[in-house]
Amino acid sequence: MEIYAGVDVGGTNIVCGLVTPSGEVVHQIKRATEVSKGPDAILEKIASMIEEAAAGFAGRSGAAVSVTAAGIGLPGFVDPEEGIARFAGNLGWRNLPAAQRLQARLNLPVYIDNDVRTYVFGEAMYGAGKGFKDVLGLTVGTGIASAMVNDGRLYYGYRNMAGELGHIVMEGLSDPCPCGLQGCLETYASASGMVRQAKKRIQSGEASILQEWYPGERLEDLAAADLSRAYDQGDPLARSVMEKAGTLLGRALSYAVPLYSPELIIVGGGGALAGDRLLEPLRKELYSRILPDYREGLRVATALNNDDAGVTGSAMYAKQRHAASV
Amino acid sequence: MEIYAGVDVGGTNIVCGLVTPSGEVVHQIKRATEVSKGPDAILEKIASMIEEAAAGFAGRSGAAVSVTAAGIGLPGFVDPEEGIARFAGNLGWRNLPAAQRLQARLNLPVYIDNDVRTYVFGEAMYGAGKGFKDVLGLTVGTGIASAMVNDGRLYYGYRNMAGELGHIVMEGLSDPCPCGLQGCLETYASASGMVRQAKKRIQSGEASILQEWYPGERLEDLAAADLSRAYDQGDPLARSVMEKAGTLLGRALSYAVPLYSPELIIVGGGGALAGDRLLEPLRKELYSRILPDYREGLRVATALNNDDAGVTGSAMYAKQRHAASV
Repeated sequence: MEIYAGVDVGGTNIVCGLVTPSGEVVHQIKRATEVSKGPDAILEKIASMIEEAAAGFAGRSGAAVSVTAAGIGLPGFVDPEEGIARFAGNLGWRNLPAAQRLQARLNLPVYIDNDVRTYVFGEAMYGAGKGFKDVLGLTVGTGIASAMVNDGRLYYGYRNMAGELGHIVMEGLSDPCPCGLQGCLETYASASGMVRQAKKRIQSGEASILQEWYPGERLEDLAAADLSRAYDQGDPLARSVMEKAGTLLGRALSYAVPLYSPELIIVGGGGALAGDRLLEPLRKELYSRILPDYREGLRVATALNNDDAGVTGSAMYAKQRHAASV
Repeated sequence: MEIYAGVDVGGTNIVCGLVTPSGEVVHQIKRATEVSKGPDAILEKIASMIEEAAAGFAGRSGAAVSVTAAGIGLPGFVDPEEGIARFAGNLGWRNLPAAQRLQARLNLPVYIDNDVRTYVFGEAMYGAGKGFKDVLGLTVGTGIASAMVNDGRLYYGYRNMAGELGHIVMEGLSDPCPCGLQGCLETYASASGMVRQAKKRIQSGEASILQEWYPGERLEDLAAADLSRAYDQGDPLARSVMEKAGTLLGRALSYAVPLYSPELIIVGGGGALAGDRLLEPLRKELYSRILPDYREGLRVATALNNDDAGVTGSAMYAKQRHAASV
């Protein structure tokens, strides 16, 4: 039985799934990452999770399960050719030969890539992008990042650094970004960015139902989902923050469309949960700023398998790399 | 002897060259396009120019010359897979099966593509981009367009429409663009755009040496090269127009860099003749708006073979397509 392991490594959790060659997740487990225990412990956890998932699925299905290859989606800068995690701030990794280490430990082919790329690969090939040839995917969460898939191939660019949509500097924004620039798209339009803008405006005295929900110091607990709730109750501040974020996303995408020419744009990550609250202003801004030739063909959709795309994408990415290597 | 024909078809002239497999142009001829004579006449002219160039080079070199394959760079929207010129406004072509027609007439493999892509392919592979893996090229002329070459492969996108850098709508610009949008980059930063802005400012009463050179109605004759001349004499209006154009180019490229991650940006076309007058403000704006990780590796250069890149690129594009087909 041909089966692939897909692992999505985040700063909080690691999710590991077994995926059929057609992209179906048949077994999945989740564990805390425990960043504080260091790189060796995390690598060992990834390896044992793959073994545990294989054993679990074998027990359930009654068949012998031998994983063909494993794909790992890692945060930060990843060199997929060399198999090295160049830099992952929230894991504390730097130049870690993760693929070789896991390959030696598990005795099976292991391929690594950046987690946004594997997520977008999963959505583009087995989610909302199924059947489309040129797909631009973005994740709207703590930050904003993107990846482009053309005809089943991920786009990488020099040093595999393509896709930093969130660090496009936008006219009219001026907040400092941890990256060192000012006015990056993600300072406003990411899920965290929207929350930060809402807090700032509440603290400067603007009225909002959010203030009733989170009075005083409790404002710290405000989350992106609260903005959607307040939006639905007609809260002007929540509406203003989300509309501006959607507009900014649309504007940044109006720069991406003439360059990449996607047929479909998929919005994923936590921000996808905001749905049309973000997508309506996004589409309005985007379609008003692109050539008619783009406008006619282009669709914008939210992710179909937001929770699973990282696992599916990592596993199917391993399948693709493995097929190319044999 | 393995030799390729490369043809660059413009609204004014057609240039046809014979190119060795290593990208050296060994013979070249140029004829007026004569658009008014219609598509059949232009196709016949392209075919007979290829024959004439082969005969001319055979006569000069004393060797028998048999062209292996021909590549044609055409303006407008081109479908290179189908070999169809979808739409070329300045040639008056629409859905013309140019590749098949020329192939039947010449009895040799003919490949067509958009002229900016073939030009950028030539510069990326055999010009300023030689040795670089991820190259973004742009032409600054009547309009502005771009193409991306990764590891020797041109990037196309949906409907082969990637690379319309000139139709990114820029904040702060509002002039109407013939495309139907307002404030496209090329309304200001193309060679024609700069001339138009200079004329507008002179007509609204701004002082400039250009007014002395082109008094009254003669202002119509103002060309992009005059702006460079006036710039060198310290003319404030020419300096202001070129600096703003360079800044806008740099800003648009600051959107392209996080998306494509090029290692090298090549500025070609007529605008490349402006050299540092454009590139200095371009670099200043670009480098101030991109992540340090991009800034460190990225270079910006003018085209090396501005005149020949279209011919070299078309011929070497034919070589690549031909090699993939046999």
